[in-house]
Amino acid sequence: MMREHYHEELESITDGLVEMANLVGSAIGRATTALLDADLHLAENVISGDEKVDDLQRDLEERAITLLARQQPVATDLRIVVTSLRMSADLERSGDLAHHVARLARLRYPGHAIPRDLRRTILEMGQLAQRLMAQAAEVLTTHDVDAALQLDKDDDRMDELHRTIFQHLMDEQWHHGVETAVDATLVGRYYERFADHAVAVARHVVFLVTGQHADDLLTEPPTTT
Amino acid sequence: MMREHYHEELESITDGLVEMANLVGSAIGRATTALLDADLHLAENVISGDEKVDDLQRDLEERAITLLARQQPVATDLRIVVTSLRMSADLERSGDLAHHVARLARLRYPGHAIPRDLRRTILEMGQLAQRLMAQAAEVLTTHDVDAALQLDKDDDRMDELHRTIFQHLMDEQWHHGVETAVDATLVGRYYERFADHAVAVARHVVFLVTGQHADDLLTEPPTTT
Repeated sequence: MMREHYHEELESITDGLVEMANLVGSAIGRATTALLDADLHLAENVISGDEKVDDLQRDLEERAITLLARQQPVATDLRIVVTSLRMSADLERSGDLAHHVARLARLRYPGHAIPRDLRRTILEMGQLAQRLMAQAAEVLTTHDVDAALQLDKDDDRMDELHRTIFQHLMDEQWHHGVETAVDATLVGRYYERFADHAVAVARHVVFLVTGQHADDLLTEPPTTT
Repeated sequence: MMREHYHEELESITDGLVEMANLVGSAIGRATTALLDADLHLAENVISGDEKVDDLQRDLEERAITLLARQQPVATDLRIVVTSLRMSADLERSGDLAHHVARLARLRYPGHAIPRDLRRTILEMGQLAQRLMAQAAEVLTTHDVDAALQLDKDDDRMDELHRTIFQHLMDEQWHHGVETAVDATLVGRYYERFADHAVAVARHVVFLVTGQHADDLLTEPPTTT
């Protein structure tokens, strides 16, 4: 076995994941701006950029399988490779969700998909989504378990924001019609799912470092929802 | 290496995936019935049953990692183990989606979440979702590549049904209000995503048998959506 090459390969897998996380984090930020500003150019930019993320995932998957076959890693190294397969799927899916947000911006252009009274909530969801993904990218490199577990807690705010959207929609005062309600429902779900994937990446980091599942390490009991 | 034990382990991974697929296929069928009949008991049954699926996934993951570490499989065997990690994630997520459908049924009980003019579409989506998962379970065992690729084509109908829901929602005649529109939007998305996961399982089977990605084998060009 070529040990030097092996460690390079292992590091390049982590680098690939960080690159994916940076790309999809940037994509959700740009998609949010495109949505709130009804910026067609920026929306198109996010839509066309998603292919890069898909290519990175496929490339990572191939390298992970090759590494498993040739180098037969064990212990933490094995967990790095195995979790990379899961994490790259989470990141690829996050890219899809940023793409969905951008497509909605494009679909409603030159109109605005999001009515004025939901702008602040959507902005905060978009910013939080991008921040959670930046945290996920960071823990991919640092392998800091506490920081990784923190994402679970920070994600609670996303759930609150998601509920805020439904409160607006169910309000008697809602006068934006059904189409806008449908748009807001879908967009709310896209952000919530994006955040879930960032949390999932962090949870995989917890597993790769400790060999234990994040659920077993979090002090709070799992919610029943 | 204990070769006999090794093949047993490998087979038990496939068996675990088939068991998961059967469970979530049944769950989406029961969730659909619970939703359309406003059957609280059945909804609760689906909700509590999801834990079994989560346990199976965790168990499968552990066995896959142990097998990789101890037996160092190569070629098709390696692909079976690697794809099992992806497929179990798809199946676990499908279970969550069935759970979401059941939760909506419970939330609106004793009312009906789905208005009369959408019942037929939702029924067809639920049946198609269950059927696609049954096909996925089958190709997990048969490793039949043509049958696996067929799921991609059968899923087109799900996309049509999903569009039908939006057409109803955007219709001037829609008089069920915003809450029902939000419910229908979410439910439509749950079924569509459930079907996507069944298709993803089948695509992983294509990869594990051929070493090639389904996209490269499908005759139709990939859609740009």
